[in-house]
Amino acid sequence: MTRIVIPEHSLFGLANLPYGVFSTPGAPPRVGVRVADTVVDLTFVDDVFAAPSLNPFMAQGHARWVEVRDQILDLVSGDVPDAAVHPVGTVTMHMPFEVADYVDFYASEHHASNLGRLFRPDSEPLMPNWKHLPVGYHGRAGTVVPSGTDIVRPTGQRKGEDAPTFGESHRLDIEAEVGFVVGTPSPLGTPVGLDDFGERVFGVVLVNDWSARDIQAWEYVPLGPFLGKSFATSISPWVVPLLALDAARVATPPQDPEPLPYLREKDLWGLDLSLEIAWNGQVVSRPPYREMYWSPAQMLAHMTVNGASSRTGDLFASGTVSGPEKDQRGAFIELTWGGKDPVTVNGEPRTFLEDGDEVTISATAPGPSGTRIGFGEVQGRVLPAR
Amino acid sequence: MTRIVIPEHSLFGLANLPYGVFSTPGAPPRVGVRVADTVVDLTFVDDVFAAPSLNPFMAQGHARWVEVRDQILDLVSGDVPDAAVHPVGTVTMHMPFEVADYVDFYASEHHASNLGRLFRPDSEPLMPNWKHLPVGYHGRAGTVVPSGTDIVRPTGQRKGEDAPTFGESHRLDIEAEVGFVVGTPSPLGTPVGLDDFGERVFGVVLVNDWSARDIQAWEYVPLGPFLGKSFATSISPWVVPLLALDAARVATPPQDPEPLPYLREKDLWGLDLSLEIAWNGQVVSRPPYREMYWSPAQMLAHMTVNGASSRTGDLFASGTVSGPEKDQRGAFIELTWGGKDPVTVNGEPRTFLEDGDEVTISATAPGPSGTRIGFGEVQGRVLPAR
Repeated sequence: MTRIVIPEHSLFGLANLPYGVFSTPGAPPRVGVRVADTVVDLTFVDDVFAAPSLNPFMAQGHARWVEVRDQILDLVSGDVPDAAVHPVGTVTMHMPFEVADYVDFYASEHHASNLGRLFRPDSEPLMPNWKHLPVGYHGRAGTVVPSGTDIVRPTGQRKGEDAPTFGESHRLDIEAEVGFVVGTPSPLGTPVGLDDFGERVFGVVLVNDWSARDIQAWEYVPLGPFLGKSFATSISPWVVPLLALDAARVATPPQDPEPLPYLREKDLWGLDLSLEIAWNGQVVSRPPYREMYWSPAQMLAHMTVNGASSRTGDLFASGTVSGPEKDQRGAFIELTWGGKDPVTVNGEPRTFLEDGDEVTISATAPGPSGTRIGFGEVQGRVLPAR
Repeated sequence: MTRIVIPEHSLFGLANLPYGVFSTPGAPPRVGVRVADTVVDLTFVDDVFAAPSLNPFMAQGHARWVEVRDQILDLVSGDVPDAAVHPVGTVTMHMPFEVADYVDFYASEHHASNLGRLFRPDSEPLMPNWKHLPVGYHGRAGTVVPSGTDIVRPTGQRKGEDAPTFGESHRLDIEAEVGFVVGTPSPLGTPVGLDDFGERVFGVVLVNDWSARDIQAWEYVPLGPFLGKSFATSISPWVVPLLALDAARVATPPQDPEPLPYLREKDLWGLDLSLEIAWNGQVVSRPPYREMYWSPAQMLAHMTVNGASSRTGDLFASGTVSGPEKDQRGAFIELTWGGKDPVTVNGEPRTFLEDGDEVTISATAPGPSGTRIGFGEVQGRVLPAR
């Protein structure tokens, strides 16, 4: 039997207990929980965790999530069978869940304003609808990949002088986002109210919504981003349960004008996640999730207000997290102001991503009693176009 | 044993053989083939058809599709076991496949020009990118529903005088489209070339992309349609194999300017599908698919040119099929010019959909030797908002 040692300031203490899908040599992918620097095999808790994804467990619903979290806490607080314990460095992490539909919002006022100024310099930065609804669109679920997946530089059409040109993207960018994973489905025709968020949403991941700005700029009018985004979206391997984030709840910034009733909540809450973006190992930005204008519950309520169903495994992301300060911007197009104002990375002036670059997004949040909760990193390296 | 009688002008003769998922009282959904007015249970051919979706069979690849089509032809041409034969009126049809990602294109020049004039009356109707690439976006895979599913009128935000208003859509519309179903997946990082279309695409369905124009108009800038579309997309229950559509191939209209090399094909082919839209039983439009500007192979090549993978069950639709004539328009917003020019349906002037309205889209295509091939109808009725 093993007693797991948790260092005092571990980001993966007993208040966190995030779920992921891992494999060890010779054994198939299954669900585990991270505790300190170990992964505990949850098939020792329940057979539902023998699946190579969290979907079957997430579909069991909120009451079961609470119950199993207690069981896991019991297990990992005591003596754990040796066969269940793996050092985190010895396992391979996989996609933690099967993505049903993937929706990407645009919930940061700072990001939407910056992008508006950059993409449409002659117009008002925010569209007339922006403060009335959380603007969002569907992304490609099939190209959501786990952290560590290499990102091949995409190829496509870019605007040219008289006609478009074709080739590899010259403006490859990131978007640091926070993603919410639906556990309990909602049927067609039944909107999910603001109060239902906690019953429906299982957990939270970090998202890097890789973006080819030149491809995007040429294609996106009038039907929105498509190939500029659909080549890859990376997520962190650990799903932090919403149940672990009570201490991270904060009020959202004030909303003015007051939103319509289905988006109006007495106590609008966001999450006090502190993100960090490392470019080739150097931290270049620290986006504060607490600055996001639209709350997670407002996003889900809006996504379903037309009667759209939601499914176990639906992923909806916040859109780029950008704060009011320059070094809080969550995309390089903002951080370098469209490439005109380079940042210094390891002594070199840099704008968009070069082949071989590596980006790592991480985050922490307040836990109970002054502790911190960690999110798994979402990391990716850029490979040359094929 | 039963010998299936095929009337001379049946749209479901031996040259068609479309696949669907059906159930009979007391037995689970399984795959069948439609022959004349009967459904033949394909579990009598292969166990792969015991699944409640076509995905396992589609994933077996092109060579297997050819082989099994021959086996089915042998079976239904001779004496079929009685237990395998069901009159089409006695079975319940289900979703024929699990939708992986759903992409909607905008491939009709007539439709895109009409919508441009209606949504942006002060600008050029076609955007500068339109003739250079097949514009498309991701839709909601989880709300693709089979023909016959009632459509609850969606609710949402609509543009108001000073602020948006909330309520049921007053401009509920249809879009008559043709959808293509991917059978053989393609890996991340590997574009599907134009010549690969036939190897990858399993078959064709009819699509009704229900659209709430007031919700769409308010939300769609800058990230594209979202809730105006995501409440429901209906598809026909029968997947017509691409193998049945050789005689339906026709040249697309000329493309000027010449597209970039990855979209340039020596013999661009479209499909000579004749669609028909019935509104409460009265045919109001006959959109010709042969008029579509972008070809099916160009859509798939574009969708993957950035390295995006495709999966078994991916559905990509053409966008509204509209011809050059008024009675060939595939959406009511075009047919009634934004509601200003009503059409007469059963003696009444009509613009957008009213509660209780029923819309049925059907299509036929040339088969071998002067025969015709039928598509299953896609039908839906509008229920009042909840």
